[in-house]
Amino acid sequence: MGAAMAGHLRRAGYPLTVTTRTRERAKGLLDEGATWADTPAGVAAVSDVVFSMVGFPEDVREVLLGPEGALGGARPGAVLVDMTTSEPALAIEVAEAAAARGAHALDAPVSGGDVGARGATLSIMVGGPADVVEAVRPCLDVMGKSIIRQGGAGTGQHTKMVNQILIASTMVGVTEALLYAYRSGLDVERVLESVSGGAAGSWSLSNLAPRIVAGDFAPGFFVDHFVKDLGIALAEARRARLALPGLALASQLYVALQGQGRGRDGTQSLVHALAALSGQSFPPSAAPGPAS
Amino acid sequence: MGAAMAGHLRRAGYPLTVTTRTRERAKGLLDEGATWADTPAGVAAVSDVVFSMVGFPEDVREVLLGPEGALGGARPGAVLVDMTTSEPALAIEVAEAAAARGAHALDAPVSGGDVGARGATLSIMVGGPADVVEAVRPCLDVMGKSIIRQGGAGTGQHTKMVNQILIASTMVGVTEALLYAYRSGLDVERVLESVSGGAAGSWSLSNLAPRIVAGDFAPGFFVDHFVKDLGIALAEARRARLALPGLALASQLYVALQGQGRGRDGTQSLVHALAALSGQSFPPSAAPGPAS
Repeated sequence: MGAAMAGHLRRAGYPLTVTTRTRERAKGLLDEGATWADTPAGVAAVSDVVFSMVGFPEDVREVLLGPEGALGGARPGAVLVDMTTSEPALAIEVAEAAAARGAHALDAPVSGGDVGARGATLSIMVGGPADVVEAVRPCLDVMGKSIIRQGGAGTGQHTKMVNQILIASTMVGVTEALLYAYRSGLDVERVLESVSGGAAGSWSLSNLAPRIVAGDFAPGFFVDHFVKDLGIALAEARRARLALPGLALASQLYVALQGQGRGRDGTQSLVHALAALSGQSFPPSAAPGPAS
Repeated sequence: MGAAMAGHLRRAGYPLTVTTRTRERAKGLLDEGATWADTPAGVAAVSDVVFSMVGFPEDVREVLLGPEGALGGARPGAVLVDMTTSEPALAIEVAEAAAARGAHALDAPVSGGDVGARGATLSIMVGGPADVVEAVRPCLDVMGKSIIRQGGAGTGQHTKMVNQILIASTMVGVTEALLYAYRSGLDVERVLESVSGGAAGSWSLSNLAPRIVAGDFAPGFFVDHFVKDLGIALAEARRARLALPGLALASQLYVALQGQGRGRDGTQSLVHALAALSGQSFPPSAAPGPAS
């Protein structure tokens, strides 16, 4: 996703310096005229705004706060914008570390996946001081279509957690409903026609159920990353003394998928965890007649 | 809902004979020119097509198969169309009983609620023989906008169960996400702006989350009826040897709402069950600072 998002910045006319752990991944951007830096600190040394998009909170910590991290190279007044889905507490820690060096930091995780990154239709949920958000808004505008400041440092991440909590249980509903439809011997595509447009409708049902029916489990969004996100949400809820049993269940089913070796599948692969639970493969056979 | 749906038939020019347990409820239809019958058998005695819309499977059994039920008065070739959300096995039993008397029966539950009934925008999921469905389609067309035959007897009910399974877990996600947002101290309306239009979006989020935020728990759809529906879905899944843990959890949370005396609330009241679980009322207070 990072490459697609950086490409929009480049094409909007911003000079672009990039680094990645795997240089090969930056090839397209370098061919388009981006400059290479060996480290995040090297990027920051020549940049007014530094965007980071990595995998896990420990990666965020390394690329922003580590020995070769962006903050170490940041110029006075620079803005670090972390677009990784990560921990709200880490976002606050980064913001404080940035302030201590005369720089600024925003947490700005996104939703919309690969498709949204390529099409610049991402929803960007931003946490940080209002004036800093306004200063970088022109850059965010070229990457997304809904850029909303949610409040101070960490609120972008908290809002992304709300997003993931919604998706988690919605996906449980979508996959359980599909399994029920198969086991009841229904024509699943016809069923989707009946239920998708009404009160049972959702983005997941419209976009992922057809992939499940087609047997397409390629990632839009990796199971491994979703397990990370749900773990952060559960930890934050626990900290707030808030029990979220639906989220806990969804999280366990996604962990089960990792146990099935499906961590690099897309999130719609959840149907395999639920099918396996009842000793079925996917698609399951229709149940043999009415049992007692 | 039944009154609104019957009204559309009347205004489309069909002669209409009605009965209800509480005659007062039929007053509007009678004022518009509908004829009263004292029993469902009395309705059937003068009708080519008999529509039933009641509460629970035992009510379906009584109004269709009971001593004064519609089947007892049904004319040869008549069609009984049950639009109640009820048991697939009962739909099959009714269809067989109708066939034994030279009549026909369809199961045709609806989704779309009060609003869909009034606006004739219901989704109608129909089970039964194709020629019988085609014969009554003109009547169904004046009550709904999506009329889809799903297969033989019982498939309409099974499809409605798919619909309710989807809604059940989606509502768990919506209410858990809202509680997380409140406890994290976010501006909940601004959060909904960020998450409603993307991959986390759903009909429930767009239509019921704003009611929850506004403290509006009036029924679109009763908790009591939803508990009935989820019980049918769980029984059917059990019969098919299919474990649906998300549905089971949602069902228990809705039962908890009944325990709170909220059976006549709308389904969005689920937020109260989840708040109570963590010792909160709704809306919950923000959690006091980061706890360990």
